[in-house]
Amino acid sequence: MYHSNILNVQKTRKLIDDIKIAVETEIIDLYDGNSRVLAQEIMVMIDVPPFNRSAMDGYAVIANDVSTASESNPKYLKVIDEVGAGSISNHHLKFGEAIQIATGAQMPSGADAIIMEEDVESSKGKIKVVSPVSYNNDVALLGEDLKKGEVILSEGQILGPHHLSVIASAGYKEIAVYKKPQIGVIITGNELVEPSIDIKPGMIINSNKYALNGVIKDSKAVSYIEQCQDNREKLRDSVTEAVKKYDAVITTGGTAISKGDLIVGIIEELGEVPVHGVSMKPGKPFGFGIINETPVFMLSGYPVAVAVQYDMFVRNFILKLQNINKEINMITAIAGENVRSSPDKYNVIRADFKEDDGVVYPIRTKAGINKSVLMSNCYIIVEEGVGKIKKGEECSILKYSSLKVC
Amino acid sequence: MYHSNILNVQKTRKLIDDIKIAVETEIIDLYDGNSRVLAQEIMVMIDVPPFNRSAMDGYAVIANDVSTASESNPKYLKVIDEVGAGSISNHHLKFGEAIQIATGAQMPSGADAIIMEEDVESSKGKIKVVSPVSYNNDVALLGEDLKKGEVILSEGQILGPHHLSVIASAGYKEIAVYKKPQIGVIITGNELVEPSIDIKPGMIINSNKYALNGVIKDSKAVSYIEQCQDNREKLRDSVTEAVKKYDAVITTGGTAISKGDLIVGIIEELGEVPVHGVSMKPGKPFGFGIINETPVFMLSGYPVAVAVQYDMFVRNFILKLQNINKEINMITAIAGENVRSSPDKYNVIRADFKEDDGVVYPIRTKAGINKSVLMSNCYIIVEEGVGKIKKGEECSILKYSSLKVC
Repeated sequence: MYHSNILNVQKTRKLIDDIKIAVETEIIDLYDGNSRVLAQEIMVMIDVPPFNRSAMDGYAVIANDVSTASESNPKYLKVIDEVGAGSISNHHLKFGEAIQIATGAQMPSGADAIIMEEDVESSKGKIKVVSPVSYNNDVALLGEDLKKGEVILSEGQILGPHHLSVIASAGYKEIAVYKKPQIGVIITGNELVEPSIDIKPGMIINSNKYALNGVIKDSKAVSYIEQCQDNREKLRDSVTEAVKKYDAVITTGGTAISKGDLIVGIIEELGEVPVHGVSMKPGKPFGFGIINETPVFMLSGYPVAVAVQYDMFVRNFILKLQNINKEINMITAIAGENVRSSPDKYNVIRADFKEDDGVVYPIRTKAGINKSVLMSNCYIIVEEGVGKIKKGEECSILKYSSLKVC
Repeated sequence: MYHSNILNVQKTRKLIDDIKIAVETEIIDLYDGNSRVLAQEIMVMIDVPPFNRSAMDGYAVIANDVSTASESNPKYLKVIDEVGAGSISNHHLKFGEAIQIATGAQMPSGADAIIMEEDVESSKGKIKVVSPVSYNNDVALLGEDLKKGEVILSEGQILGPHHLSVIASAGYKEIAVYKKPQIGVIITGNELVEPSIDIKPGMIINSNKYALNGVIKDSKAVSYIEQCQDNREKLRDSVTEAVKKYDAVITTGGTAISKGDLIVGIIEELGEVPVHGVSMKPGKPFGFGIINETPVFMLSGYPVAVAVQYDMFVRNFILKLQNINKEINMITAIAGENVRSSPDKYNVIRADFKEDDGVVYPIRTKAGINKSVLMSNCYIIVEEGVGKIKKGEECSILKYSSLKVC
């Protein structure tokens, strides 16, 4: 009789976690960096601003000229030049002089303060200053935003729009990021057809293809999906090709525990299968294999089981391939109803968590009801040995939103 | 003297909200639907499953044959056929018979229950059943997942992987989604150069380009960014072209309030500028214009102001262009330090919110410190007339994470 390696969830995770991973990096244009994962440290290469500059539209002055200005003691300065952003004045400012200046323009030589345009009266090439202005007033100082040599970001950072902006300011036009993992998906099942309203007797629409393409994209990886007939030769060829080409391979279907099912047998022939069967509900017929160091995640055919198996075992591996280390973070909630579970299994129960009062309600459906994934926003996790949780008792939940990386 | 239309934040939002929007839709392959916005109702087109099918690997039987089976009263059935997923048995099951069946295979005619493989002993073409099996045991019934005619999703739904899976099952190969808004961005400023460690005196790296490209992508829209010299003719040509081509236009720079600044003057010439200046800090020099029904958002040149202006006024408009209606949702936190604010302005203060204890700390930096956006995870919002908030008092915050749409 076929002997399968049934493990518990914890041992299965440990086994997958222990796989040695060689992350790969690539250099890309900073412009394409949004939502990528930084593979280098960002050390500031130039002071920002690179010179003292005006923070306002107004006049560059010598603070000492106007430090005591008031309504009763107005100061008059002669405007000797005008400088816009991106230009430089050739004048060296002397006492009694001012230069009209735009926001962002470099401070003229000799000037050490800015007076806002609204705060002066200007006429006939002169300005009248009636309030005191101090040293460095409205001057953005060299290096005050970013200091040359300062380290502002570390590798592993997932880049958002404002990271890109600061990296640009730090002088980088290109950055090193982790390569997007390339994930091969082999969908098995002779009964599977494309969506249509006119499907032949015995056939079922291949919905896993759409879900897996989405979850792999959401894991910041690239998916290559093929469908393969339940034919030993063809399937072995597909797997052999896929483990050569991709960083990891996912299969669906053919993982039944009771017998050496098709896909499991093939992986065992080509490599090893340290896990076949996890004491988890749903999703027990999960297999994990390794062929020439390429991991193969064997998921069920059932969409609900596929979702749970991906969430429990696959996503974090794909994230690690790009150096994103994400924990599966559970929080505590109050059961709004009795929660049925199998005491000998790790139970992953689709449920609806009400954020406002911290109460969670299990969705009551049969295992095969795919739309239950849409009706739920979290899993209630009931570990082995716990058994039934009563209404009003605490339980652990895993919010779907906490699985996202964006 | 130049007269600008300074409004408060509320009036500015109302004015932008009142812009009439014509959302556009397109038909795409379901496979490309991840993270798109559904523009149709999804009414289930076929029952799922489309036939009664086996939920287990095992034997299809007539429940009445084995409803009283027990160890002391075993029942024997003759195995007359074997059926895999995607195939159909030609036999009509009669009393005393069983058909071996795979998970997902259509129930043979006459059969009304499944016995799991593990629960029988099989030898010489017969199975021995020693526990009772009831009607419809382990049978997935026609329509139990999705019922033909049932409406499962409405327009406006942002599609995730599992929506796609269920839509596939409902029979759809193509779906209508909202078109991604096309957003033109014109960056002005003669002082702006590409990132480099070797920049000429007076020049500044153009970081807004990178931030805006990112935030527009994160708003599920497509950005077309150009840089334009501060030259009246060139800028007018760019704006004239852009408002023809794009659903909305964003400009940066040239929005000073004290005078009719370059971009504002041009937009006023080509259309109207109902807002120039918002009593907000930072980000006061914000302009909003309309040219032939195309909105033009005039943002500052300063990156911090650009971030705040985008968050306050632009994102939700771009989302509405694809029928995503998102509120700006604030929550209450406790000030961990005194929060300084201008009582005559709507204050948007970068801050660090500690989720665990609900306390928020304002980031103390000058307005021009761009990296403060990275050091913060929320804004403290202090509306007009409120003034200083003391340490320990409640304040409203807007988490950056709550701005995301993914």
